[in-house]
This record gives sequence, C-alpha cells and structure tokens, in this order.
Amino acid sequence: MSAKRKLDLQSFPLPHEAARPVPPRIGAQVFIEPGQTPKDIDDWFRILEEGGMKVCRIRMFETHMHRADGSWDFSLYDEAFRAAERHGVNVFATLFPADDTVGGFKHPRNKAHLVEIAEYVSQIVNHFKDYPALYCWVLQNEPGLGCSYPPSDLADRLKKEWKASLPASAYDSKGYRQTFFDEEEFLRYYTTWFLGWLARETQRHDRRHHLHVNPHAIFCTFPEYDFPGWRRFLTTLGSSSHPSWHYRAFRREQYALGLSANMDIVRTGAGPLPFWLTELQGGYNLYSGFIALCPTREQTTQWIWTALASGVSGIIFWMLNPRAAKDEPGEWALIDYQRQPSDRLLAARGAVSVIRQDPALFAHARPVKSGVTFLMARESFWTENQQRHGIPGQYEGRNEGAGMRSVLAWYEALLENGIPSDIVEMDEFDWDQASYEGQVIFLSHQLSIPSRHWERLKRVVTKGAKLVVEGLTGYFDEHQVCVMQTGFPLSDLLGGSVREVKLIGDTFKIPMGKGRSLPAHLWRGTIANRSGKVISAERGDVYATRHVLGQGETLWIPSLVALGAWQRDNAPLARLVREEILPCIAPLPVIFKKQEKLALIKTLQSGEETITVIINNGPKSRKMALSVQGKRKPRLLYASHGGKISRASISIASEETMVIRWSAC
Amino acid sequence: MSAKRKLDLQSFPLPHEAARPVPPRIGAQVFIEPGQTPKDIDDWFRILEEGGMKVCRIRMFETHMHRADGSWDFSLYDEAFRAAERHGVNVFATLFPADDTVGGFKHPRNKAHLVEIAEYVSQIVNHFKDYPALYCWVLQNEPGLGCSYPPSDLADRLKKEWKASLPASAYDSKGYRQTFFDEEEFLRYYTTWFLGWLARETQRHDRRHHLHVNPHAIFCTFPEYDFPGWRRFLTTLGSSSHPSWHYRAFRREQYALGLSANMDIVRTGAGPLPFWLTELQGGYNLYSGFIALCPTREQTTQWIWTALASGVSGIIFWMLNPRAAKDEPGEWALIDYQRQPSDRLLAARGAVSVIRQDPALFAHARPVKSGVTFLMARESFWTENQQRHGIPGQYEGRNEGAGMRSVLAWYEALLENGIPSDIVEMDEFDWDQASYEGQVIFLSHQLSIPSRHWERLKRVVTKGAKLVVEGLTGYFDEHQVCVMQTGFPLSDLLGGSVREVKLIGDTFKIPMGKGRSLPAHLWRGTIANRSGKVISAERGDVYATRHVLGQGETLWIPSLVALGAWQRDNAPLARLVREEILPCIAPLPVIFKKQEKLALIKTLQSGEETITVIINNGPKSRKMALSVQGKRKPRLLYASHGGKISRASISIASEETMVIRWSAC
Amino acid sequence: MSAKRKLDLQSFPLPHEAARPVPPRIGAQVFIEPGQTPKDIDDWFRILEEGGMKVCRIRMFETHMHRADGSWDFSLYDEAFRAAERHGVNVFATLFPADDTVGGFKHPRNKAHLVEIAEYVSQIVNHFKDYPALYCWVLQNEPGLGCSYPPSDLADRLKKEWKASLPASAYDSKGYRQTFFDEEEFLRYYTTWFLGWLARETQRHDRRHHLHVNPHAIFCTFPEYDFPGWRRFLTTLGSSSHPSWHYRAFRREQYALGLSANMDIVRTGAGPLPFWLTELQGGYNLYSGFIALCPTREQTTQWIWTALASGVSGIIFWMLNPRAAKDEPGEWALIDYQRQPSDRLLAARGAVSVIRQDPALFAHARPVKSGVTFLMARESFWTENQQRHGIPGQYEGRNEGAGMRSVLAWYEALLENGIPSDIVEMDEFDWDQASYEGQVIFLSHQLSIPSRHWERLKRVVTKGAKLVVEGLTGYFDEHQVCVMQTGFPLSDLLGGSVREVKLIGDTFKIPMGKGRSLPAHLWRGTIANRSGKVISAERGDVYATRHVLGQGETLWIPSLVALGAWQRDNAPLARLVREEILPCIAPLPVIFKKQEKLALIKTLQSGEETITVIINNGPKSRKMALSVQGKRKPRLLYASHGGKISRASISIASEETMVIRWSAC
Repeated sequence: MSAKRKLDLQSFPLPHEAARPVPPRIGAQVFIEPGQTPKDIDDWFRILEEGGMKVCRIRMFETHMHRADGSWDFSLYDEAFRAAERHGVNVFATLFPADDTVGGFKHPRNKAHLVEIAEYVSQIVNHFKDYPALYCWVLQNEPGLGCSYPPSDLADRLKKEWKASLPASAYDSKGYRQTFFDEEEFLRYYTTWFLGWLARETQRHDRRHHLHVNPHAIFCTFPEYDFPGWRRFLTTLGSSSHPSWHYRAFRREQYALGLSANMDIVRTGAGPLPFWLTELQGGYNLYSGFIALCPTREQTTQWIWTALASGVSGIIFWMLNPRAAKDEPGEWALIDYQRQPSDRLLAARGAVSVIRQDPALFAHARPVKSGVTFLMARESFWTENQQRHGIPGQYEGRNEGAGMRSVLAWYEALLENGIPSDIVEMDEFDWDQASYEGQVIFLSHQLSIPSRHWERLKRVVTKGAKLVVEGLTGYFDEHQVCVMQTGFPLSDLLGGSVREVKLIGDTFKIPMGKGRSLPAHLWRGTIANRSGKVISAERGDVYATRHVLGQGETLWIPSLVALGAWQRDNAPLARLVREEILPCIAPLPVIFKKQEKLALIKTLQSGEETITVIINNGPKSRKMALSVQGKRKPRLLYASHGGKISRASISIASEETMVIRWSAC
Repeated sequence: MSAKRKLDLQSFPLPHEAARPVPPRIGAQVFIEPGQTPKDIDDWFRILEEGGMKVCRIRMFETHMHRADGSWDFSLYDEAFRAAERHGVNVFATLFPADDTVGGFKHPRNKAHLVEIAEYVSQIVNHFKDYPALYCWVLQNEPGLGCSYPPSDLADRLKKEWKASLPASAYDSKGYRQTFFDEEEFLRYYTTWFLGWLARETQRHDRRHHLHVNPHAIFCTFPEYDFPGWRRFLTTLGSSSHPSWHYRAFRREQYALGLSANMDIVRTGAGPLPFWLTELQGGYNLYSGFIALCPTREQTTQWIWTALASGVSGIIFWMLNPRAAKDEPGEWALIDYQRQPSDRLLAARGAVSVIRQDPALFAHARPVKSGVTFLMARESFWTENQQRHGIPGQYEGRNEGAGMRSVLAWYEALLENGIPSDIVEMDEFDWDQASYEGQVIFLSHQLSIPSRHWERLKRVVTKGAKLVVEGLTGYFDEHQVCVMQTGFPLSDLLGGSVREVKLIGDTFKIPMGKGRSLPAHLWRGTIANRSGKVISAERGDVYATRHVLGQGETLWIPSLVALGAWQRDNAPLARLVREEILPCIAPLPVIFKKQEKLALIKTLQSGEETITVIINNGPKSRKMALSVQGKRKPRLLYASHGGKISRASISIASEETMVIRWSAC
Repeated sequence: MSAKRKLDLQSFPLPHEAARPVPPRIGAQVFIEPGQTPKDIDDWFRILEEGGMKVCRIRMFETHMHRADGSWDFSLYDEAFRAAERHGVNVFATLFPADDTVGGFKHPRNKAHLVEIAEYVSQIVNHFKDYPALYCWVLQNEPGLGCSYPPSDLADRLKKEWKASLPASAYDSKGYRQTFFDEEEFLRYYTTWFLGWLARETQRHDRRHHLHVNPHAIFCTFPEYDFPGWRRFLTTLGSSSHPSWHYRAFRREQYALGLSANMDIVRTGAGPLPFWLTELQGGYNLYSGFIALCPTREQTTQWIWTALASGVSGIIFWMLNPRAAKDEPGEWALIDYQRQPSDRLLAARGAVSVIRQDPALFAHARPVKSGVTFLMARESFWTENQQRHGIPGQYEGRNEGAGMRSVLAWYEALLENGIPSDIVEMDEFDWDQASYEGQVIFLSHQLSIPSRHWERLKRVVTKGAKLVVEGLTGYFDEHQVCVMQTGFPLSDLLGGSVREVKLIGDTFKIPMGKGRSLPAHLWRGTIANRSGKVISAERGDVYATRHVLGQGETLWIPSLVALGAWQRDNAPLARLVREEILPCIAPLPVIFKKQEKLALIKTLQSGEETITVIINNGPKSRKMALSVQGKRKPRLLYASHGGKISRASISIASEETMVIRWSAC
C-alpha cells in the first residue's frame, strides 16, 4: 500500500506515447444516465463526430450499474462505448464509485469502503478495458478541496505510518514554539496515496490505457496537490476550470487570464507529462455554481485558444449533453434542449476547423517559455489561513487567498506585456540547475518561506537569477514563527532586513523615483538596509532595494504592491515588470510594444513556425503594436471578429481572439 | 384518527350561517395575562364597545389556567368572557395548549403530548362553551412555517400510514432518476391531520360554534396549506398578515398591494367558506418583527378597506392592548400606554362608522371576480428550494421565492389597472368546468409543473381559456427532472419547446415589436417554435409566441419578464396586461383608464350597487381617469384626505383611501 | 471559599500606598517566550530603561515553566526578573495558568482544575515573590467577555449557594410574568468569586505586593463587572483598551474619545483605588484584531495624554517586543524587528520627558470632576439582548449596544464642550449623599430601570440633582415587564407618563422651540404630561418636558436623540448640553467657549496648578476659544505639532495634542 512503488507505465505502449505527435483534440463530457435511450446515446456521439470532436469523457456511475441485489448491469454504458466506437470518439472514463454528491467523495470512508471501491474498480475496468473506444481512465473526479477527510482507522493508521517515515527535522525555529501543519501535510499525502492506490487497482486489471486526474479550483486547492508525487503513477495530468465555480478572484473580463493562469499552473505541475483541460465550462449554470454565467461564443473561443496556447493536449468541455435529473439538470451543456448546437458548440467546432487546416503545425506546437517563474509555498496558504482567524476582513489583504491574488496580479502585468510564466510550488522547482542566467523568479507575498528553501534561494541568485521579492514574503518560517524578528534568514540574500510593516490604508503610494510611484495596499514594509541599493525611500524610510549577489540580483519591495495593482491601476506595475524583466530574459518571439490592458499574448513554437494567440478583453476595439523578434512574416489563421494584422501591429475588436502564424522570412 | 371523516357541521346551526347576512365586523385581539385586574379587563372590552368594535380574539393560554398541582383556575378568563358579554363583544377563542414560544407549537411532540392537548381542549371547551360571548374556536394559532416537525413515533406512524394510502404513480419521469418530495408532502398532510384532530376534539365537546384557523406568512408558507382539506372541518378560514413579519418581499409603498394579494390567496383558499383577516398589524413593533414599523393612520385605513374590498367577513387587529411581559411587551397595540385610542384605533373606528351608515349594503357585498387566475404549484416552491443549494444569490432570480415574486409582479400590474385576480394552488383549481371562455390563467415562473396537470392545462385552453406562461415555467416535472430536454410535455399546448435559457444579466430587454420591449431579468429563454405565432424575435432567436388551441390560446414568454418588471419599471408589463387580458374577460364595473402606478382598485358588488375602494400609494396627489361600465352614478362614501369624484375621474391625495358607491342610473 | 471574606491588605505596606505620591509611570508589556536568549531579554529591559520607562508587565505562562514530567523550570523568567532589576524596571506579573488560547481562560473547568490552578499559583508566587523587581500580581488576564462559563459541578454548586443567599424580592412586577436574569447575574458573581479566590490563593503566599486585574472590551462587558465587589480584594484596578479589538462603536477620529470614556468608566469603577491603563495598543496588528490598524505617533501621543488626564497611575503598552510564535507574531510592538524604537515608542518617551520635567506636579495631579454622572443599569444590557432576538437590524437603535452608544453620544457632546463626566453602574452610585446640588445625572436610553432604583432617583432629584432622562429609559422593570403600561413608576419623578413610542424612521427631528430642533433616530416617544413644563410639542403631541421636584428638576426626552446625534450632526445636542448642564454645575477651570467638534479637553488639578490636555481630531488646524475660570496664566508644557496658546485661545493642528499648565496669577 505504499504510494512510492513506481508503476511500470513504460512497459507497455500507451496510445499517446506510441503514436507520432497528434494535434490537440477538442471534445466534451457525455453524460450517461438511466432514462436515455440507445437513440439518445447515439445522438451524443453523432453530434461530437459531426463537429470533428473525437474525444469525450464519461462518468462511470456505480449507482447506475450496481444493482441492489449485488449484480452488475453494464448495458447502459455498453451502449455508450459502442456508440463512441461507431462515431470514432475516444473515451476518458471517470471512475465514480457509489456516492450521491455532485462531485463525488475524495477519500475512502474506511477500510471496508476501500474493499468496495476495489471491487467497483475491478468490475468496471475488466468489463470496459477492451472497448476500442477507451482511451484513458480518470482515477477520480476532481481531487482536492477536501478541507478535511473522513476520520477512520484507515486514515489514522496511514497518518501514523506517514509521520514515522518523515525524517527528523534539523530546524527548530531557534527554540521558539513551533506550529506544525501535520493535518494539512497529511491531507496532501493522503490524497496522493489514495490516487496512487486507485492507479494500482486500475493497473491490476489494465495496463494499456492512460491514467489521468483533473484537479480543480486550483486557486484555492493549490497547496493540496503533490504533482511530482502524482507523476509517479499518472500518464497525463488534467484540470477542471469553470468560471462559475472557480473564478471568484476574477472580474468577468479577466476570465481568459484566469484560465491562462490555471493552465500554466497545471502545465508546470505536469512536468514532462502531457496535460489536458479535462473540464471547461461548456454551458450555463442556472442554479448551480457560485457565479451565475452563460459563456458567450466569444468567451468560449477565447478559452479554447488560451488553453491551446498553453500547450494542452486537448480540451474536454463540461459538457455535451445536460444531465436531466436533480443535480444541475439542463445546465452546463453545449447543445440545446432540442439537441441543436449552441453557439458555444459552434465556437468549439470553429477551433477544430482551424486545427484541421494544418494538423502537423499544431501537433508539434509547444508553448514558448520565458524563464519567468512564480514560486509559491504551500505553507504560505496554510499560515495565512491560520493567521486570519476567520475574521471577516475590511481589507483585501486580510482576506483569504491574498498570496494567490498577489501572484495573479504580477502574472497579469506580465501577460499584458506578452510575457508568459510558470507557477510552481517551491518544492517542485528545479533547484539544481547549473546556471539561472536568463531566469527571473518571483516570490510575491508568500507569507511563509520554509527553512529548506533559504539556502536554495541564495544559490539560484548567486548562479545568475533575478529574484523579485514582494509583500510580506518570508515573514514566517514553516512553523508560524515570525523570523523578521528572530533573525531574518533572507538578510544576506536581500542585503537587509525589515524594520516594520505598517498598516497605511486601502491604497497608498510607494515612490519609485523620477516622479513615479506604485500603488500599494494595506501594509507598507520598511527596510533596514545593509548592502542593497535603495530604489525607493521617503523621509529616511526605505521601501525598496536592489541587491547584487554573485551573478544575480534581487529586487525587494516588502509592501503589497501586487494587491495595490490588482485593486486599482496596474499600469505602474506593468511598466516596472517591463523594465525589470525584459532585460533579464531571452527575447520572446512576439510581445506587445507596451502594456495592453486586459489583453494577452500566448505563443507556441512549432519547429520553425510560431503561433501567437492574442485576445482583447478591453471594452473597445484597438490597435496594438507588437515587438517581433527577428524577421517573421505573419499569416492570420483565425480572427473571431475580422481582426487584421500587419507586420508590426494588429487591429482587434473587443472580445476578439486572433491566431497568427509567423514564418521566418 | 383519519382526517377524512367529515365533520357534520351541517347538523347544527352556526351563528354565521343561521343569521341573515351581516356586515363585516372590525375588532381586535384582547390580550389577557396574569397581573391584569378586573378593572383592566373591563377596560379592554369597554374600549372596543365604545368604537363599535363588537368582535375580539382571546388567546386561551393553558399556562395561565393550568396550575402546577394539576388543577385548573379559569377565573382570569372568566372575567374576560363576562366583560365581553357585558360589552356585547363576540369572542374568537384561540386554543393555546402549554408552550413558551411566541407563536405556539404547530405539531404535537408525541403521543403523550396529544393526550395532554386533548385534556386541555376538553377543559377549555367544556368550561367556556356556554358563555354567550363565545363565537368561534380558533383551533391553532398560525399554522405553518414549520420547516420541519418534531420527530416522534406518532409522526413516523402517521407518515407510514399516509405513504401506504397513496395511489401508485403512473408517471416515472421516463425512467430518469426521480426525486420525491415526501417530507414536504407529509408536512402538509401532517398539518392538516393535526388541525382536523383538533377540530374533532373540539367538536367532541361543542358543536355550536365556528371553527377557524389563521395561516400566516402566506408568501412563504403557501405550499404547506391544503385548503380544500381544511375546508372539511373548518367553518371559516382566516389569515394573519403583519407587514413587520411577513412583507419582506414588498417595499413600504406596496404594503396595501401585499395585503390585497394575501387576502386574495386566502379568499380563493376559503372557497365557499367565509374568511376573516384574523390578525392585522395594529400597532408598532419595537424589537420584534423583521421590519421595524409603526403603521400610520393612513396605512391602517388602507389596510382595512383593502381587506373589506377583498370580501372579508371581518378584521381582527393584533391587538387592542399590548402584552406586558417579555415577548413583544408594549408592542402591537391599538391603544396607548394610558389606554387612550391611538390614531390606528381612530382609523378603525372611522371604518366602522362608514359601514354603520348602510349595514345592508355591506352585508350583501361580495368581491367582483374577473376570471383571471394565477396557478401556483407547491412543487415549484420545493424544487426552487432544492435547486438553489442555499448559495446566496447575486441575482434576485436565484434567491428564495422567485416564483412567488413573479406572480406578485403580474398581480401588481393587473391591480394597477384595476383587474382583480385569484391565486390558487394548481390542485385546488376547478379543472372540470364546461367552458373557460372569459378566463385568463397565468403560470408565472412556476419551475415545476407536475405531470398530473399537463393534460388539464391543454383542456382548459381547448375549452376557451387564455393561458399566459412566463419565466421558467415547466422546466421540471414533479421529480426535479428537466423535461425541457427529455421531451417538453407542454409542447403541443404552447406550439413549441425551449431551446436554451441563457443568463443575460440583471436587466435586459425582450423586444415586443413596434419599438416596444419588456424589461427582463437574468434568464432569457429561446423558443424552438413549431406552430406558434412569433411575437418577439431577434436575429433568428424567438423569445415569445402566441398559440391557438381549440377555443383558446396561449401567450408564452420563457424569460423572467415578471421579475424584470418587479425590479425595474413595470409600465411595459402593465401595458401588456391591459392589451392581452382586458379583451379576453367580461367587462369590469370600474377600472382605471390606464395603469396608475402604486394605486389599486378593488370592487364589491352588493345587489345592484357597486362599491369601489381606490387607494393611492404614489408619492403625489393625482387625478385618475376611470373606465366605468354602463351607466352608474358615483357617491363618495369615504375619502380619508378629502378626495373628490366626478363621473369619470377622481382626484386623490398621496396615501389616500377613497370608498365610492355606484348606483345604476 | 466565600468571596466576601475581606483580605487584610491594610496589614502590610504596599508599594504605592507606602510611598509619597509618585508621578504616573509609562511602560510596556515585555513578552517572554522560549527561544529568547539572555541577551534578548536584557535588551527588552535595557530599551525600557533607556526611555525612562520603569514599569513593565510579564505574562507568567505556566506552559513555559511547567515541564511534562511535572517539574518546574523557572529559569527563563528568572532571567527576566533579574534583567528587570538590573534596569530598574518594576514588574506587573500576570498569572497565566496553562491554557492555549490567546487571552487565557476566565473560569475554571471544574474542581480538579481549581486544584491545578492553586498549585500553579503556589509555585509562581513562592518562586518570584522575593524578586525586588516584582511590583504587582495581575490575577487574571482580561476578565470578562465570558458570554458563558464552562459548565461544571463547581459552577452548579456555586450557583446553588449563590441563589440560596439572595434575599427574597419584595417586588413582583404587579403579578405580571417575571423573567429573571439569573444566568447573567451568576456569571457576574462567578467572575468576582473566581478573582477573589485567585486573590486569596496569591495572598496565601505573598501579602506584600499589589493585586490587580484589567477588564477589557468595556463597552460590551460593562454589565459583567462588579467593581465594588472586586475592590474588596484588589489594590489597584486596570483596563485593557485596544482600538483594534474594542473600538468597533467608534470612527477612527473618535478613538481618543473612546479611550477617554473607557478610562472614565474604570476610574469611576476603581473608586478610591488607584487605576492603571494596563494594556494600551502599542503597535500594529496584521492579522489579529477586528479592526486593522497601525497607531500613528500622533494617536499614541493622544492616547497617552488622554489616559494621563483621566488620572491613571500609569500606562503599560501592549507591548514592547512582539511575540514570535503563532499568536499575533510580530504584531503589537513598540520596537521594530531590529529592536529600534518605533515612532510609537518615541511618542511614549516624549510623554515620559514631559512628566520628568516636573514630577511633583504630575504626582499630585487628580482629574477635575464636574458633578456629571451617567448611570447605567446592567439589566438594560441584558434586556436589550433578550428583546433584540438576534434579528439583524436595519436600524442602529435595534442593534446591539444601543444603550451604550446613547451614553457615548452624550459623553461626546459634553467632552466637545470640555465637560468631564463619570460613567457608573446604578448599583455603584452613591445614593446617600446629603445633597445633590450641583450634580447632573443622565439616564440615556437605559431600557430597564430596576425597581430598587425608583425611589432613589426621586430622592436625588428632590435633594437637588438635575436628572436628564432620554430614549426608552425605564420602559422595562428588571423582569422584562413593560411598566410604561402597567403604571409608570417614574411618573411622579417626571411629571407624566409615556403615551406611545412610534417608529418614525432613521432620522427625524424633535422641535425644541425657537426654530431649533434635535435630530432623533428611530423612535419618538410622546408624553402624557401631568405636571411637567412642556418644552417640545407638535400638533398636540408632547415630546419633551421639564419637571421640578423638591430642590431639583428633570429634563425628559423619551426619543432617541442621543443616537440621532451619534449618527448625524451632534451640534444641536452639544448646544443643549451646554445650556442645560453648565448652569447646574460648579464652574470648571477651562472649557471651550463653544462646542469644538472632534476635540476634547480633559483637566487635572495638582494643588493650585491646573493641567489641561487638549486634543484636536478634527480634519483641520483651527483656533479654539477657551473659557478660563478665574485668573490663570497658561504655560505650554507640550505641543505635538507646535500649537500655540494665548490666554483665551489656542491654535492647534489637526491630530495635535497640547498640554497646558495654568498657574494662578
């Protein structure tokens, strides 16, 4: 029962690896439920086929197959797999052992439950594994967001074993009282353990198909996921991303940005594995979801191209046909109640057409990387939650997720210039590269920087990285001890320490010289500078410094300037980003000449060819000037509203998506 | 213990039926509590008598009469009944077995509790039944709003028997997973059962007096009441209606409208029985109630005449004298702390004077009916509650009670034109009339239309009714299955089906041709039209149709236009109502020439004479033009602010109430 | 175990009483925790010494000293007491038996817990009592705010004994149903009992040091404190006052006012005992507290001088050095993370310097009293809480603490004229003075006036007091019976009774003659006047009267004029105060010539010398004219922003604090 036994996925050919690169696929969840006739089921797959959407996902409800008398009746799902085959549709089959919640349970109730689940897996996998349409097993629907797990002897025993296996810590917070995040760490371990167990149970019966899961609500659940751990048993990673459920941090015009960030987190988490957008909101919610929304055709197009430009292997909409009964009935679908295509489905088909025009181009396309990385510490999430005490905040910075929103603010400022980035948990970052020249690393309002990273951070800067440290980053170690006062461990790195973190107000300004300033929020840190170069000061108080260390340097602003930009005007932050980051990194193929608010560029490289996706969520049509690296000739592959491109600039309507191919000339 | 055994109320003469018609009476609750002296008690009834208010209600607290040693001391209440007799006041006596909540329990705790209640009923009824002042037993204070009932063996047994007695359903939602509203249906049954049990226990000792109950908070509790079931054992129906507790759906200037709707629901529910406004807010609440309010003299006058014009047999204010101790002390009274009349009491006395000027006129007055009926399905309330998941809504349409508020929006638009209507649960409607010519039926945002009504609806239209279907009416069957997608059962009726229900935003417009439009809210339904006549369309999307079926026709707008009107401007809806409804129904004696915002007309017919009550809650004095049917001569019976009438128009001050008598000439 | 056995504190010389008067001291909490080195600890006391801050407070954590094996290790705290001695710092040592909440438990869990606590007290007191630095034992951190206490046999037994000891009540609310506040009264008793028990346990081992406690959150917890009971075992009283935790009733510019009111409550509660500001917010909270705040240098100066001018024996900031671990880490400190003084610490040192310039002047300074007293009934708080039912209010007057806010509104209007006042629970007032001439007593919206005070109130007026009765004062007796209707017991006193209390709206006006009016809120009471002089009336309704009784008189306004002023403009109320109060009381040394909004004067008398503290929290610099009694020559002792004084007026900047010494000339 150890999650660490490596699954030998290499010992058999998997569909994806076996074939030569294939272009990304677009499909949808087919929802199978009792009441549907063979004609109904055939319709779903026929509709997919008609649009060239050759991939689907099916939830394998135990409650639909396991009869009260203990026998199994697979006929409804047999119908589906046969229809899929008939219409040439590949199937992601989601294991869904008996449960009556909307999203399914995330951890077993107890040992006996585990036995029942094993029996379910055995029945399902053995029965369906030989269907030619089967492409992939999804081990669990949407792991994560389990604030807690069901208490059981099983969990107790695993927790005990897990604790015993941990190495003794050399770090004791200098003797100050330590808080341990055992529950949070164990939940993370337990999730990984259970997914690994599901993988092994599946592989016990079938070693020929992909294994996949789709973490969701990533902006909240980020600290729960151990992606490297998962990569030991998965063959592809996925994600669920629904504005109605998951985008409460964003305004409506930022939804493409939100999806982009979501994709970049999952892409980074997938490492060498292919990754999918396993669930993308395909239709309207009426009563479900936190945010009431009907995606428009424009939004759907934007989301597809945002995901494609992030490098997904495919996109599966949630969902083709709506459920009929009780949970989300009639909601979320790509087709209407008369089985006609909605404008969202037409948008999806439109994207399929573009890909079909040059499959090879898209098959080899990989996202361009910039060398910019956001490091996030899971302990920062946990520390923030502990420190907040649940008191409802009058200020954004005291509300849940301030660290995540800070990262998103920088991410947005970068993307509005055209600079992509990685977002990764600190333990997943590669700390052992020979050189970090050309790399920029952000630590944005990461409250807790665990001790194991202190030396690493110094090392990457010494080896050439530029490190941007902002907000209350590093205020705590991993034990909720305030290291600002017990001897700041990043002092050598940053060339100084913090004096105070004063609450100033909802918005205030950090002067940045030459009459410029950055809007900031809530807290203003002052620096006791030792060896840094002061770049912001006022009446003797130092607000920002630069510090050279080895081959690299740091930029340190211990105030909430990201949240200041997020709340108010992000133009000053975007300008700072441009000036600070662009000189440090290798030139990008295509970026904006200046920040374009609410717009984004994402770029794929396919051999010698470059593909740029540009989206304008600003309220108006506009011209945008581009900086194009080298000699490249543009060709418009797609423009949703008739946008135009000339070599150095585009004209693009509000809400438009443009896809441009650049060839060397 | 079956609720179905019919009580033979016909076997003895009851006060109301025995006498010739009497004019409606106005009175007040007299609150009796320990601490009051015989002088105090005499004062209450003397004050009633002085104002010609010859009816009261008394709560018969067991806790005031049943001593700790088990003996009974009725002396305090004997004093009250003697005082009532002395001053010629009739008494509604409310059974109130031991309880220490403000409103009393609604269901027994268990079998033993039932025995205690029976003993209480026996003691009270036998002791007080021979007082000449006694007029009516109120079986329970304010049944309903019992989200749940106390669990007990008794409830379990009754539920089992009830379930066993239900006929097997022929309808299985085409095999889709069915949700059953057993708890909700049983609560409704259980309430009826318990009220019936109380009726039988009362009748065991006394068959000479009226039996009555007063449902309250009707806009929320509507689905809990089985009025036809109650009519098997009641002799009159009643209602509690307090803006401070019950009118959260209304703005202050809509309170007369709210009372009117409340009265019309109870009037419809009473069927052939007389009905009373058993509790009307008589004074201010300080700390009790949801809405802080002190009714003004003007409001009190408006409410009295609104109720009278709805056809009540009488009005009992809550209350004459305030309670002194703990619960609502000093609140809700018609008299001040010095026992002098408040201006509310003067308003009540004023109405008594008007009635006394011609008792026969008012004795024979009955509300004019228009043939307009709102059908509401209890399953719609329950489905909405299930679907909402309790997520606090950013939109009105996703908040509790959207179906009820939709009905109220139409009701208001009708009343501001002068068109009265009935509001009735679908099972209580008379589906077997020979013809429905001259009738208009509304289904306004009734989420769930149970299968048993599908054919009935077709039948009434075929037989001549006009049916207006609005909002997401019929989205579900009675099992939370979305029938829009499984084969829309109202398709033949409406000449089409729904394609999609898109979320558009808080307000948007539905074009209605000739440059007109209806404001709508949240969701816009599009129609896959088959045989209807399109009356609203835009870029190929059909938003509204008309469909002729047999002798009747339908008007279908599957968007939230009622909530759009409720939130914003209701003028376009009122205009639609006028144009669509007036041509279909028999002419009404007196209506407005055009919509008068925040005004209402309610009309009584008394032999050849017509009485119209007109209320202006608009912010200003204004002239209102009237359409008067036939030749009638007006005479002003009452005008609270000196309003004037000429044949075709009135001038009426803000907040004024006018009562006009029309005689043939 | 009886709290009533008097502790013989008189039998040994205590530091304070023994010495000749000392000037007030300013110090700070030193937070000791594992992880701190001897150097760290020495630093804390060195920093205090450097600023002349010779007093500190230390929390004596059992969890830091009591080892798991049962043995005790005092070494960390020994280090602290030695360092304190080295640097000449006196120590308030706070008993803190094992607990892991931020503020500590308030009542024992059970009998066994009591035994553990006794052992802890024995260990701590015996070990530390001989350190010369020790000055005072703080028996418990922040008693109060215990909405409830942990249920136990101990509590049950004490409650039983306490109930048995209560005298039978002669008053039965005239036979109306009585509600008893047993739980609330017992909580108050139980707190007093436990603090007394802690005092006795401490004195069992040490009779040479002060005993102290620091009630907190006084605007909420006021009714929990039995100050006269506590004075039987305390030698000094204290208070915690943190805007971030306790000032939710105030706007930011009212924080000095809030502290002033807090101090005046505790000063009144202390009676003959010295009192301290035991905790004053010294630094910023980041995540803790309800209100996010970093006190400025200006605020810190204002707060110090507000407390000094209230007559405190000393001020102890919370805190010098921040905690490092978990709870409030890095927060609340006077020093920065580099151990340099914050501007708050500089402000504190500035005040120390002013005192040091003339220690004798400040040592003998006592606050000037005006003869104005606010009486508050604890039953008013409890009745309000019961009556509110927890329904969230649309109006301020229906929200929690309306009675307290009413008092604060009058208090502010007085202080903006320069008139100080006492605030005291009714049972603590001295009802047996020979004469009340020159005294003004306020009963501001005190919902419940217990029967035991009715005659007393008449007596004090008869003996010369002016009594101002406002709001719904006296609506209830102590049993939640509305005496307005059962025979108003204050009728003889006020020359009339209440007719009605009508809800008018959020703001309305009470006419006061000569074109003047008072803004009022929510409820308007009308008076059935018998023998009073009408001073406010409209269309026959009387809103305010004056009534002469014996040597005194009353002013009665049974409407919420205090909350009206609090919400809106308080200028009319301040004018009323000036006209009504000033003629009744002895002349004050220095007051404003007219109301100065958001400013305050507080005055100390030291022998022949007068010290006035003036603070301006208005948004602008301004001139303020002063009324100076007799011939006095001003000398500026301190002006934070360069304010100037001439004989009859000052010029003072926004947020400035000025300290002026007046000498006879």
